[in-house]
Amino acid sequence: MLPCASGCFKSCLAPSILTLRPVPPSLPSVTEFTQGLLAGQRGTLARAITLVESTLPQHQALGQQLLQAVLPRTGRAIRLGITGVPGVGKSTFIEALGLYLVETLGKRLAVLAVDPSSPRGGGSILGDKTRMPRLTAHPRAFIRPSPAGGSLGGVARATREALLLCEAAGYDVIFVETVGVGQSEVAVHGLVDFFLLLLLAGAGDELQGVKRGIMEMADALLITKADHGNEAAARRAARDYAGALHLFPPTASNWAVPVATCSALSGQGLPEAWALVEAYQAQTQASGYWQQRRAQQQLQWLDEAVREGLESRFYARPGVREALPAVRQQVALGQLTPWAAAGELLGAE
Amino acid sequence: MLPCASGCFKSCLAPSILTLRPVPPSLPSVTEFTQGLLAGQRGTLARAITLVESTLPQHQALGQQLLQAVLPRTGRAIRLGITGVPGVGKSTFIEALGLYLVETLGKRLAVLAVDPSSPRGGGSILGDKTRMPRLTAHPRAFIRPSPAGGSLGGVARATREALLLCEAAGYDVIFVETVGVGQSEVAVHGLVDFFLLLLLAGAGDELQGVKRGIMEMADALLITKADHGNEAAARRAARDYAGALHLFPPTASNWAVPVATCSALSGQGLPEAWALVEAYQAQTQASGYWQQRRAQQQLQWLDEAVREGLESRFYARPGVREALPAVRQQVALGQLTPWAAAGELLGAE
Repeated sequence: MLPCASGCFKSCLAPSILTLRPVPPSLPSVTEFTQGLLAGQRGTLARAITLVESTLPQHQALGQQLLQAVLPRTGRAIRLGITGVPGVGKSTFIEALGLYLVETLGKRLAVLAVDPSSPRGGGSILGDKTRMPRLTAHPRAFIRPSPAGGSLGGVARATREALLLCEAAGYDVIFVETVGVGQSEVAVHGLVDFFLLLLLAGAGDELQGVKRGIMEMADALLITKADHGNEAAARRAARDYAGALHLFPPTASNWAVPVATCSALSGQGLPEAWALVEAYQAQTQASGYWQQRRAQQQLQWLDEAVREGLESRFYARPGVREALPAVRQQVALGQLTPWAAAGELLGAE
Repeated sequence: MLPCASGCFKSCLAPSILTLRPVPPSLPSVTEFTQGLLAGQRGTLARAITLVESTLPQHQALGQQLLQAVLPRTGRAIRLGITGVPGVGKSTFIEALGLYLVETLGKRLAVLAVDPSSPRGGGSILGDKTRMPRLTAHPRAFIRPSPAGGSLGGVARATREALLLCEAAGYDVIFVETVGVGQSEVAVHGLVDFFLLLLLAGAGDELQGVKRGIMEMADALLITKADHGNEAAARRAARDYAGALHLFPPTASNWAVPVATCSALSGQGLPEAWALVEAYQAQTQASGYWQQRRAQQQLQWLDEAVREGLESRFYARPGVREALPAVRQQVALGQLTPWAAAGELLGAE
């Protein structure tokens, strides 16, 4: 088997006439990676992301060195989280807003995704390149599917690392897309500057799949598909949501969460949606909230990384693995206090 | 010094003519504690709570034995979380609803509190007995201030343990009160069956102090102070909030979150508020959600107890304590990746 021709490190299953023995794929050095990345080479960026997504220790080590090397060149992009239930038109919206950014504004855009349900080795629902054909083909856009398999923690971490690599490669806008259900939103909220919730007109019925609490994390609400005679319903929905948001407590940033409508089809509302993001940036950079939140997010990632390290070591210990199922059952059934159970497990370490 | 006459373990500062040497307070055995508790003795309950709140290892050990001994007698109370910003009339509401429960319905009620801002050794803002004079004096009510000082995790844990002790002592309704700001709400939400948010009429202005996300945790909203000519404003506010809630995704329990008004002064709306709690209990016990959520909460407490144990051991290690401040600063300033920093700390263990 040969290293895959597309530049990833996965052993390729295509038959080879050159050799019958597995050949270890040769890895560029940190310096080569760094140079390629800072020069904005897409191939290097793709390989670097594969590196930080890899679970092989030598890839992990190289990935960490690379991240540390490019760290001074990160942080300059706008990081935009985008969520919404299936059916809201997320792909179409991202393609339309993305094309506006790269074509009209001349931005360089990277689209990442967090989807823990994405199966390892299979295709990812999010970030699938066929969903955004024009954006995928654009030289100033870089689209990357969600890292596959693994825990939400692992997927979120790989996405954070990919985000930093994209910034080092000169992308000045990063979209981080998420499925709109479950805990992924909280993870994405912790790694972006601005969190955009896409909604359909329909006064609440479409929220069946949205997890409670997401609405209160949003920095803007955008009613999609305001086209084909649906304009009035979208405006009505926007008014309803704006009224509801008025009853919410103010955000920590003092930003008044706006509600707007848009159509990815006609392009109506897309420049205005982007203007909201830039207004938020201007306001919170002036107040210092932007910088403060970035620093807080970095410290949170540190705390999480420490916690994950401690927990993964702990739960991997043979004594703990053996005792855990029975202990959890006793706790769930109310036969053992959680604290006695924790003491038992911590003692079994 | 003598053990305090009121039955707590704190050495009393009152001068003593009996002895000049400190005498170690004598602790009842687990059996004595258990018998007193199951007999519903208030003094034993107070001492048992002091025991689980104590940071002395021998108190902790005895407390854990006691909890394990009484565990089969816990779980039968309705656990009701109550929150709302200062000024909403929380004490007056708790006194009024509490008196309705103990006097009219003949319930036994315990009132606990979670207030991590409460200073160690000083008086607690919440649970202060002088705030609820009639309830405090009632033989079927037991009021306990928030455990003082320490982290939110520590305060929440002590409150969970106190809650179980109250149930073992036969209290069939437990109120857990919280300040309405900060992270305490999330902790309290994780230890109650029903979470009640008190609000004032005033269309959002009073929400300045409420943390975002709390509204979406609420199982019912109650507009207080619907009296003295304020009735119409309260009804209008209730209507506005009900409209806003309609735009929220449904709760995990399939419970439709109601909005009502009440007056602690006139008693209007109090029986109805309690009826909501009982309706919730009936509906979710029938669907199995009630039992399922209790089991989930217990498993969450286990996970948290393990995490706290791992983290407290880790952060107490000399190498980690020494390295931490510089590492955190480097991460906050963007000079070190969070993952490299975590690796450094985990290696310093």
